Amino acid sequence: MKVGIIGAGRIGKVHAKNISMYIPEMEITMVSDPFLNDETEAYMRACGVQKFSKSARDIFDDPEIEAVLICSSTDTHAEMIMEAAKAGKHIFCEKPIAYDLQKVREAIQAADDAGVKLQVGFCRRFDHNHRAVYDAVRAGKIGEVNLVRITSRDPEPPTIAYVKSSGGIFYDMMIHDFDMARFLAGSEVTEVCAYGSVLVDKQIGEVGDVDTAAVMLKFESGAIGMIDNSRKAVYGYDQRVEVFGSAGCVQDENDIPSTAILSTADGTVYGTAYKVMWDRYTNAFVSEMKAFAQAVIHDTQPPVSGLDGLYPVLMAAAATKSLKEGRPVKIAEIC
Amino acid sequence: MKVGIIGAGRIGKVHAKNISMYIPEMEITMVSDPFLNDETEAYMRACGVQKFSKSARDIFDDPEIEAVLICSSTDTHAEMIMEAAKAGKHIFCEKPIAYDLQKVREAIQAADDAGVKLQVGFCRRFDHNHRAVYDAVRAGKIGEVNLVRITSRDPEPPTIAYVKSSGGIFYDMMIHDFDMARFLAGSEVTEVCAYGSVLVDKQIGEVGDVDTAAVMLKFESGAIGMIDNSRKAVYGYDQRVEVFGSAGCVQDENDIPSTAILSTADGTVYGTAYKVMWDRYTNAFVSEMKAFAQAVIHDTQPPVSGLDGLYPVLMAAAATKSLKEGRPVKIAEIC
Amino acid sequence: MKVGIIGAGRIGKVHAKNISMYIPEMEITMVSDPFLNDETEAYMRACGVQKFSKSARDIFDDPEIEAVLICSSTDTHAEMIMEAAKAGKHIFCEKPIAYDLQKVREAIQAADDAGVKLQVGFCRRFDHNHRAVYDAVRAGKIGEVNLVRITSRDPEPPTIAYVKSSGGIFYDMMIHDFDMARFLAGSEVTEVCAYGSVLVDKQIGEVGDVDTAAVMLKFESGAIGMIDNSRKAVYGYDQRVEVFGSAGCVQDENDIPSTAILSTADGTVYGTAYKVMWDRYTNAFVSEMKAFAQAVIHDTQPPVSGLDGLYPVLMAAAATKSLKEGRPVKIAEIC
Amino acid sequence: MKVGIIGAGRIGKVHAKNISMYIPEMEITMVSDPFLNDETEAYMRACGVQKFSKSARDIFDDPEIEAVLICSSTDTHAEMIMEAAKAGKHIFCEKPIAYDLQKVREAIQAADDAGVKLQVGFCRRFDHNHRAVYDAVRAGKIGEVNLVRITSRDPEPPTIAYVKSSGGIFYDMMIHDFDMARFLAGSEVTEVCAYGSVLVDKQIGEVGDVDTAAVMLKFESGAIGMIDNSRKAVYGYDQRVEVFGSAGCVQDENDIPSTAILSTADGTVYGTAYKVMWDRYTNAFVSEMKAFAQAVIHDTQPPVSGLDGLYPVLMAAAATKSLKEGRPVKIAEIC
Repeated sequence: MKVGIIGAGRIGKVHAKNISMYIPEMEITMVSDPFLNDETEAYMRACGVQKFSKSARDIFDDPEIEAVLICSSTDTHAEMIMEAAKAGKHIFCEKPIAYDLQKVREAIQAADDAGVKLQVGFCRRFDHNHRAVYDAVRAGKIGEVNLVRITSRDPEPPTIAYVKSSGGIFYDMMIHDFDMARFLAGSEVTEVCAYGSVLVDKQIGEVGDVDTAAVMLKFESGAIGMIDNSRKAVYGYDQRVEVFGSAGCVQDENDIPSTAILSTADGTVYGTAYKVMWDRYTNAFVSEMKAFAQAVIHDTQPPVSGLDGLYPVLMAAAATKSLKEGRPVKIAEIC
Repeated sequence: MKVGIIGAGRIGKVHAKNISMYIPEMEITMVSDPFLNDETEAYMRACGVQKFSKSARDIFDDPEIEAVLICSSTDTHAEMIMEAAKAGKHIFCEKPIAYDLQKVREAIQAADDAGVKLQVGFCRRFDHNHRAVYDAVRAGKIGEVNLVRITSRDPEPPTIAYVKSSGGIFYDMMIHDFDMARFLAGSEVTEVCAYGSVLVDKQIGEVGDVDTAAVMLKFESGAIGMIDNSRKAVYGYDQRVEVFGSAGCVQDENDIPSTAILSTADGTVYGTAYKVMWDRYTNAFVSEMKAFAQAVIHDTQPPVSGLDGLYPVLMAAAATKSLKEGRPVKIAEIC
Repeated sequence: MKVGIIGAGRIGKVHAKNISMYIPEMEITMVSDPFLNDETEAYMRACGVQKFSKSARDIFDDPEIEAVLICSSTDTHAEMIMEAAKAGKHIFCEKPIAYDLQKVREAIQAADDAGVKLQVGFCRRFDHNHRAVYDAVRAGKIGEVNLVRITSRDPEPPTIAYVKSSGGIFYDMMIHDFDMARFLAGSEVTEVCAYGSVLVDKQIGEVGDVDTAAVMLKFESGAIGMIDNSRKAVYGYDQRVEVFGSAGCVQDENDIPSTAILSTADGTVYGTAYKVMWDRYTNAFVSEMKAFAQAVIHDTQPPVSGLDGLYPVLMAAAATKSLKEGRPVKIAEIC
Repeated sequence: MKVGIIGAGRIGKVHAKNISMYIPEMEITMVSDPFLNDETEAYMRACGVQKFSKSARDIFDDPEIEAVLICSSTDTHAEMIMEAAKAGKHIFCEKPIAYDLQKVREAIQAADDAGVKLQVGFCRRFDHNHRAVYDAVRAGKIGEVNLVRITSRDPEPPTIAYVKSSGGIFYDMMIHDFDMARFLAGSEVTEVCAYGSVLVDKQIGEVGDVDTAAVMLKFESGAIGMIDNSRKAVYGYDQRVEVFGSAGCVQDENDIPSTAILSTADGTVYGTAYKVMWDRYTNAFVSEMKAFAQAVIHDTQPPVSGLDGLYPVLMAAAATKSLKEGRPVKIAEIC
C-alpha cells in the first residue's frame, strides 16, 4: 500500500519514521511540503521516501498512491481532505479537521461521497494505558459509566505566536480530551460548561486565551464528565483518565521511564512522568497508523471516523462559548 | 477539662470512645440524649461517663462542665450552639451547623458574643493523608495553587428516609468536600457550577435529590476546583484529593488495610480501600478532638472556626441553586 | 483478668499503655522493677497501675494476679518463667526466652508441667501486613511454598554496649526473622547457612559481631528461605517479606506515614518507611496482647507457643555456628 | 558496518529484526545456519539479509564482513569465537561462552590475540530498569554497596530435553544473575554457597538438576549477594533487583503492559508482569546491539567484555560444586 505524506513537519516525520520501521504493509512513495529543505529530505530518504514535491497536487495526481497522510497545518486540513477525496485517495488526517464546523462537515461529506476512508489522528485512543482503561469499560468490568475524569497537562506552554493561531486551548489542547471523553463514556455529550483562568503566563491571557481550564460534560446517558487542562506541569507530561461506574472504577497512571525506586534519608523517589509527548505516545502513533493501514487493506471502517473528528470540534465550540458567556452551553446550540 | 456530650448516636459514641482512650486532657462528665437506652448508657459508662440525662439543659446547667460536644441531629445544632454559648460553654459542633444560612450566622454570632470557642467537626482536615497534602501545599512545595481536584464516593447510599431529611447531596455529602476545597486552595470560592444525575437509585431522584454530582468552583485566586461525588462506590469508601500548582502536584491515595500484594496467574491484587468511613478516618476523629482540647486549654483559635462552618453551607446553597437553575451561581448571590 | 508486669523498661511501658487503652479485658494490678523511679511510676499510674514493687516476687505472691508479662532483661527470662510457672501464673514472655538452649527447654517444661499458658513475644506475627501475607499463604492462594524471602533492616545500630550483651545479630535481630520464616513457610527449618560482614561500624566487628548478615534456610518441605539483616538503613525501619509458591507470590511493603505523592521538577516522592520500630508495629503489640488475653480467658492455646520460642533460638545457634565455621549447619547438630 | 549472523534460531532472528529496525549503522550481509529453511530465509530477507549459507565458514571468509554475531548453540560458541578471531572479525557472542572454563579462557585469549572486539550477550545489563538501578548505584546515591538481592523466575520450565543439555540451572538461568550481581555490586565474587530443590517438576530432578535455587555470594568488598531462581512463576516473568548500601537502597519492579488499575468489589487489580522474556527485554536486546555497533565503530571497549563472560561461568561452576558438596565454595577453588 503506497502512501503520500502531505506536510513534513514534526508529526509528518514521526509518521514517516514509524511507517519505515513498524508498518511493513505501507510504503511512502512521495512527501510534499512547500518548505521542503535538504535536512528534511535526508530524513525522509532514510525512511525510504524516493519522491519529493513542494505541492500536494503531485501526490493527488500520482496514480500509484492509494492513501494520503495529511500532516500539514490545521487551516489546510479540510481543503486537503476534499482534494484527496476527489482524487480517490484514502485519508488519514491529523486533528482537528478544522476550527470551522461547516468546513469539517463538508470535508467529511466529501470523503463519504467519494467512498474513501477517512481516519482522524486522535492518537491517544491507541495509547496502551488509555486503551486498557477503555477495554475494561467496554468489557463491562465497571458496569454502567457514571463519571469520566480526565487530566491533561502539558510540560510547557507553546509560544505565544502558536497560541494566537491555535484556536484556543479548547481547540488545540482539550480537543484530545473531548475525544477521549466520548471514547471512554460510550455516549455523546449534550452539554458543556467551561471554566478558565490565566495562571501560567499573562501573555496567554493578553492574546485572548486561557492556560488553565476545567470543563464539565453532560452525556446523553446521564453520566458526567470532568476534564482539566494546564499548559504547564513542571513535573512532565501528565495524562491520566478515570472511569467510575456502577460496578467499579478503572484509571491509569502516567508511564515512567523506569521502575527504579530509590530510598534514601531524604525520602523515596519513584520514576516521574515523561517530559515529552513523543515519549509517552510513541507506540500510540504506531498503532493508529497500523490501524489505518489495516482499515484500507481489509476495507473496514477506520477506528476513528470523520464523525469522531466532528464531535470534539462541536465540544470545543461549546466550551469556548461557555467560557465566554459564563454559562453551560448545549451542543444543540452549536451548528 | 470536663465536657458534656449532647447526643449519644453514632458520632457521639465515637467521640466518647476516643476521648476515653486518646484524650487524657478531657473527661466526659455527662451525656444527654432524649432517647437514651441501657445499651448506650453501658457503652458510655465504659468510656468513663458518670452522669446521664434526657435533656441537654442539665449539661448547660452543670457548672463543672467547660465544653460541650454537639452530636445531636443537624436540625438542633444551631439552637444548641446558642444555648451553650449562653451558658458560657466552649463548643465543638458536628457539621453542618444548619441548612439555613440565617441560623448558621446567628449561631456563630452567639458564640462570638459569648466569647466561647466554636469548632466545627470537619474531621477530614485532620486525616493524615489529606493533612500531608495540605502541609505540602502550605509549605510551598507546589508553588501557587492552580487546580484542586477532589473525589469523594461512599460505599453505599443511605436510606431513602435519610436522603429525604438530609438537605440533599450538597449539604449532606459534598459539604465535606466544599470545606476541603477551601482548606487546600487557601482561597475563598466565588462561584459554583453543579451537575447532577440519578444513576445509583431511582428512588433518590424521586425524593428530589441526585446520587451522582460534579461541581466546578472558582476561587478568588483564579484557581479552579473540581469535585465529584457518588453515593455508591462498590469498591469502598473512596476519598482522594489532588492539588496542582505552578511548581508541582500533590495528591493522596486511599488508605488500605494492608500492603500485601498477591500475584497469581489471574493478575496482581493490591489492597483495596476501606469499606467504612470509620476505618478511614479513625485517627482524624481523634486528632480533631485533640485539637479542640488544645484550643480550649491553651486559649487559642480552634483550627476549624465558625466561619469555616459557614462557607461550606454557602457553597452547598449555591450548588443546590446551580443544579436547579442550570447555571453557575455566584456565592454573592446567596444570602 | 488481673496481670502483673515484670520489668518497666521500654517494652514494659508499651504493653502497659496498650493494655490501659485497648485491652479492657486486662487490668494491671502490679508492676515490678528493681530500678523503679518516680517517672516510671507516674507513667504506670496513668495506665491504671496501683501497686509497685522492686521485686517480681511480690507479683508471684499476689493471689489476685492471674498472669504475668515478663519484660525484664533477657538473661532473667528463663528464671522468671520458671518462677511464674511455680506460682501458677499464665505467662507472656518477651523474646528470646534465653540464649542458652537448655534454659529455654527447662522454662518451657516448667510452664508445661504447671499447666500455665506461655506465649512468646514475637510481635511481628501480629503485624497487619505480615499477617495478610500469612493469611494468603495459609489460604492456599500461592499453592505450595517454594521460597521465603525476608528483609529486616534497622534504622540505626544499637550502642556497642548493647551489641556486646546482645548475643549477636542472630539472637538479637534475626531471631524475629527466624520466627517469621517458620511462620510463613509452615515447615520446620533443618539447615542454616550464614554469611556476615562488618560494613556499618567497625566497633561492632571489634566486639565479635557482624552488622550485615544473610542467611539461607532449608525447610523440611524442600522450600528454601533467605533472610537479610542490616543494622543500619538510613531510610528507615525496613521490614518486608515475600513468599513464592507453585500458584503465585505474595509480598508486603513497608507501611508509610501517609499516602501523599509529590511530583515536582525534581521527581516524584512517595512516603518513606517509618523510622522507628514502635511506629511500624504499633498495632502488632496490641494484637499480640489481645491474643494472649483471649487465650487465657477462653483457655485456648496461645498463638505463639513455648516451642515457637525454642525454634528461633536453635536457628540462631545454628547461624552463629555456621558463620564461625564457614559451612552450613544442620539444626540437628545443635542440642 | 557489515555483519554476519551465525545461527538463525530464536535469538538470531531477534537480533536480525532489531538491526533492521533500530540499528541503521549495521547491515546484515549474510546469515549461516546448518538447518536453514525457507521460512527462516524469508524472515531474514525481510530483515534485509541477501546471502545465506549452511556454514559459518562462508561468513568468516567474506572479506566484506566486519563483525559476527554468534547465535548458534552454546557448545559451538567457543570454537566460533576462535574461528572468528582468526578471521579478524569483531565478535558478539551469546552467553555463556562455554560450560568448560578452559574453553572460555582459550576463546577470550584468541580474541585478545587477534585484537578483535568481543562482547558477550548479557542483555539484562541493558534493561532500562536494571540500568536505572545500576546508574543510581554508580552515581553513589546509595553509598557503599552492602547487599545485592536478585530475583529471577521464569514463567515456565523448559522441556526436559533442554534441561538435560543446559548445563544445569546455574549455567543456564542463574548465569544472568551472576553477571547482574557483579555488575551491580561493582566487586568480584570470592565465594558462592548454593541451595537447590526440586519443587516444580520431578523430572527435572530425575535428570540431575534442580528447579528452585538460592545462592549467597561473598564479594571482595565485604558485600553479600543473594539470588533466587525458580523455573516456574505462574504470574509471569519475574525479574527484580535490589541494591542496599550505606546511604540508601535502590530496587526495581517488573514492567507491566499497562498502568491501568481496576477497583471492583473483589479488590484492586494492577498490571501484572509480562509473561514472556522477549516482552520484558525488548529494548535491552536493541541496546546491547547498539552498544556493540558503537564499540566497533568508535574502536572502544565493548561494555560486556570477554572477562565478563568468564566470571559468571566461574560462579556457575562454584554454585554447582557447592550444591553437590553441601558447602560454600571459593571461586579460587575453581580453575
